[in-house]
Amino acid sequence: MKRVVIALGGNAILQRGQKGTYDEQMSNVMKTAKQIVDIILDGDYEVVITHGNGPQVGALLLHMDAGQQLYGIPAQPMDVAGAMTQGQIGYMIGQAIRNELKRRGVEKPVATIVTQTLVDKNDPAFKNPSKPVGPFYDEETAKKLAKEKGWVVVEDSGRGWRRVVPSPDPKAHIETPIIVDLVEKGFIVIASGGGGVPVIEEDGELKGVEAVIDKDLAGERLAEEVNAEVFMILTDVNGAAINFGKPEERWLEKVTIEELRRYYDEGHFKKGSMGPKVLAAMRFVEWGGERAIIAALDRAVEALKGKTGTQVVKG
Amino acid sequence: MKRVVIALGGNAILQRGQKGTYDEQMSNVMKTAKQIVDIILDGDYEVVITHGNGPQVGALLLHMDAGQQLYGIPAQPMDVAGAMTQGQIGYMIGQAIRNELKRRGVEKPVATIVTQTLVDKNDPAFKNPSKPVGPFYDEETAKKLAKEKGWVVVEDSGRGWRRVVPSPDPKAHIETPIIVDLVEKGFIVIASGGGGVPVIEEDGELKGVEAVIDKDLAGERLAEEVNAEVFMILTDVNGAAINFGKPEERWLEKVTIEELRRYYDEGHFKKGSMGPKVLAAMRFVEWGGERAIIAALDRAVEALKGKTGTQVVKG
Repeated sequence: MKRVVIALGGNAILQRGQKGTYDEQMSNVMKTAKQIVDIILDGDYEVVITHGNGPQVGALLLHMDAGQQLYGIPAQPMDVAGAMTQGQIGYMIGQAIRNELKRRGVEKPVATIVTQTLVDKNDPAFKNPSKPVGPFYDEETAKKLAKEKGWVVVEDSGRGWRRVVPSPDPKAHIETPIIVDLVEKGFIVIASGGGGVPVIEEDGELKGVEAVIDKDLAGERLAEEVNAEVFMILTDVNGAAINFGKPEERWLEKVTIEELRRYYDEGHFKKGSMGPKVLAAMRFVEWGGERAIIAALDRAVEALKGKTGTQVVKG
Repeated sequence: MKRVVIALGGNAILQRGQKGTYDEQMSNVMKTAKQIVDIILDGDYEVVITHGNGPQVGALLLHMDAGQQLYGIPAQPMDVAGAMTQGQIGYMIGQAIRNELKRRGVEKPVATIVTQTLVDKNDPAFKNPSKPVGPFYDEETAKKLAKEKGWVVVEDSGRGWRRVVPSPDPKAHIETPIIVDLVEKGFIVIASGGGGVPVIEEDGELKGVEAVIDKDLAGERLAEEVNAEVFMILTDVNGAAINFGKPEERWLEKVTIEELRRYYDEGHFKKGSMGPKVLAAMRFVEWGGERAIIAALDRAVEALKGKTGTQVVKG
């Protein structure tokens, strides 16, 4: 049996324009679970799942900010917030998959593992925080918070001031031996949620850092660690396109890393969006993975069969 | 090698009077980790850890309440909030234990499992919600919320109105096969945090419910499930006492379940405090466990050796 790591995009949990209620999220997660269970029951792949947490960690940071203002209850730092969203989203996805399996007569435990992702403390991203997080502030408040808390704040596209945090490159997951063991036992595993809780190593000790990790790049490391044949990134578009949004737009179907690298270097893929997905896909195949896929969430089953989406192969 | 399930009380994470900052909590957790690692390195026991989440889930409910008021961001229901605190606390405890082990030259993975706890949908607790949670409201707001959200609200000791939720009896953990597998592999496992996320089964499907589960009673089920010899409850007092706070107060050392049951029935142990701890201890020994312990957090090592705390045995 082969092994696939599936990286679920934000739309697997929350659709654009939704407010983020439990009912909205659970309803999306249940649809996602149907796709995942289709793949599980096809029986060709052992399945490991990872997922984003952007809207959820964003909501949590605002909740904590408000709670500190209104009730004086301390906000938790970003590493802790990330761990909290792993509990939140992992619980929902795990329960939905378990229920969908049960509906189809299969009992199979689903394990959600709280996961830490090691980053290099000398990663250049720490010198150049670029990822906006949390609430918008007026300039005065933003600068006051920056001074008080050591934050970096920037003016964000005319909408106000915001904190920015680093987005370092994921190196490895601390919980890999646990994840590998569970996958080998045949359990469904959910790990590295939101790209994992970012930690650095100092004098041999782990320490959480206030940063965000790209979940596709972290998912790629996870795919290496569990020795997966396939790494599949599911998102809201059915693959990567060159000249995206232009008249000469072309969706990529089967593509070699060499060709894809050329497009990547030519700047066809948007930073912070399709860019890291393409990078993660290339990394996986370069590492030795059989195939990396970028596809739409609702085409997951066909995409894994190689029938749709962007299929990245060695050569 | 024997197996012990250790249930950490709130004071393992947050001390009375502290505000709940990350630094406070991490500092407490690091002290707790030293005790746990002492036990691990003694080498007599495989260790499974569970923990409370009262102050953390309380803070989170207030954060979410404030975030809904200030930013209009939907609060998540209590089952989700419970899962979030599992991520939060499990991450901190797991990292602290891993670091403490490393400091002493041992590399051993620690697994934090997001855990669901099955409760009976016909549990009488659902007809009689009794556990206050979340913010205090004035009477008008409380009654409005009760109407809007289907909450039960009560006047709480002259301090204002609060929501009350059921505290049903835990039956089993959904993730037991995963936990057992990891324990057998020699990993340190953290599970059933905050008593686990309460779920009921309806037509074979799991569904989160807005309730809280006593973490000692859930820890006892966990101890049965992993076939532990010892179940140890660590708290801020070094055992159970009869006539607690009275001149004839007597701390229990070695005690049989028969004797303890008599004290329990006579009402010596406070509801919602020592009561469920004693009940959990009795249940464990009745089930067939060798020994249940109630002891102070900082006496854990000696208590596990039988030298201090309340030691509950069959007869």
